[in-house]
Amino acid sequence: MIKEPKITLVGAGPGDVNLMSIKGAKALGKADVVLYDALVNEELLSFAPENSLKIFVGKRAGQHSMKQPEINQLLVDCALSYGYVVRLKGGDSFVFGRGFEEIEFATSCNIETEVIPGISSSIAVPALAGIPITHRGLSESFWVITGTTTSGKISNDIYVDAKTQATVVVLMGVNKIAEIVKIYQEEGLGRLPIAIIQNGSTPDEKFAIGVINTIEEQVLENKLAAPAVIVIGAVVSLHPLFQPILNSYEFVDAE
Amino acid sequence: MIKEPKITLVGAGPGDVNLMSIKGAKALGKADVVLYDALVNEELLSFAPENSLKIFVGKRAGQHSMKQPEINQLLVDCALSYGYVVRLKGGDSFVFGRGFEEIEFATSCNIETEVIPGISSSIAVPALAGIPITHRGLSESFWVITGTTTSGKISNDIYVDAKTQATVVVLMGVNKIAEIVKIYQEEGLGRLPIAIIQNGSTPDEKFAIGVINTIEEQVLENKLAAPAVIVIGAVVSLHPLFQPILNSYEFVDAE
Repeated sequence: MIKEPKITLVGAGPGDVNLMSIKGAKALGKADVVLYDALVNEELLSFAPENSLKIFVGKRAGQHSMKQPEINQLLVDCALSYGYVVRLKGGDSFVFGRGFEEIEFATSCNIETEVIPGISSSIAVPALAGIPITHRGLSESFWVITGTTTSGKISNDIYVDAKTQATVVVLMGVNKIAEIVKIYQEEGLGRLPIAIIQNGSTPDEKFAIGVINTIEEQVLENKLAAPAVIVIGAVVSLHPLFQPILNSYEFVDAE
Repeated sequence: MIKEPKITLVGAGPGDVNLMSIKGAKALGKADVVLYDALVNEELLSFAPENSLKIFVGKRAGQHSMKQPEINQLLVDCALSYGYVVRLKGGDSFVFGRGFEEIEFATSCNIETEVIPGISSSIAVPALAGIPITHRGLSESFWVITGTTTSGKISNDIYVDAKTQATVVVLMGVNKIAEIVKIYQEEGLGRLPIAIIQNGSTPDEKFAIGVINTIEEQVLENKLAAPAVIVIGAVVSLHPLFQPILNSYEFVDAE
């Protein structure tokens, strides 16, 4: 007898297996099928039963990734054929994760769904690198923006971002760093602190810190690439590596 | 012999005990002392050893809460006297949690520190209530803002918020709902969807949904109070309860 079909979206967190929630780990432990993305740490699959199906639906070098409608359909097919499906996504499923599209499609097929939030890289990756996303006196808000919209461009929201006091976090934006730098420079914010963290929370973490005017140089020097989190704003200056960098460039702090 | 002093900041998540990370639960399991806030689910204390000290440092009815410098000092004193201290905060410690002030003070006292991020209520509470913080075509960014700044006022950032397409999340702002409504109305956004979720992710969850022009009425009707998460923007319209409310007010959707 096939179990009642059900799909649970689970946020896998920023990378470190132990940053998964207890609830997410328990869901994996009951899964008949796990569908997972490229940004998910594969060690998490060991939480799922040995005889469960594990299906990779992300993009790998030299191969096309599955399109969203194909993933939606596969999720539903798996639930109908095997029962309990865990859909595992990096970070949190609703932070630019297209998770709600999967929920909508499954619901339209009368399949029960559940959401288990994850620790979002947008907050946790800067934190683990020593940068608090908010700090009294330095920021009263933070703004999280995608570097890659449907059209492949950076979101227009970044033009407004650059005019605020908010801490700004850009996800999926490291390949657009030249464009981001230009936008901030046009606002006269070339000396604003900025940090970029690649593979945050994992042993492969890479880090660059500086100001808008100098960060491209550091990205090249440290060979930073996706996946990375960019954090921009005064809170970056709290990092112990910031002051020496500032001194080495002989900047005068405008504030 | 006293153990090596160490302080770990652990984000407890939005309320549901099982939304704690595996890493956070393991840290609690080794704690000699746990210092916890009012917004932390006390069931989490059962993860700590039975003979560990559990110290409440939050605000309770009729009692003053401890001031931040007192908490900083207590953390350090506990680490020096007992060894391993877990500092447990609601949501994530760096999202308006003053967590970095505690790290800074402990570091200045030469005490080792560690940060274990938590699931932030800002993202998870709307998600668990059925509202994705981002959705293709509706939002390319989200902005999280505190309703209560150092001065007790709402952050000025909300004036910029009201001019953007971003999903806006206000934490600690339900007591300022009249002020928030006024700011959006002045921008001509009286019909923007808004939802308020009190005690999100727990069995005591309360919910209000509508548009800017109608939400105050609903807050009164449903007796919503702190702690609550406010979410404002087009993504709120994805909630199944939104369409009937919109119809009942006979609004014409401007989009």
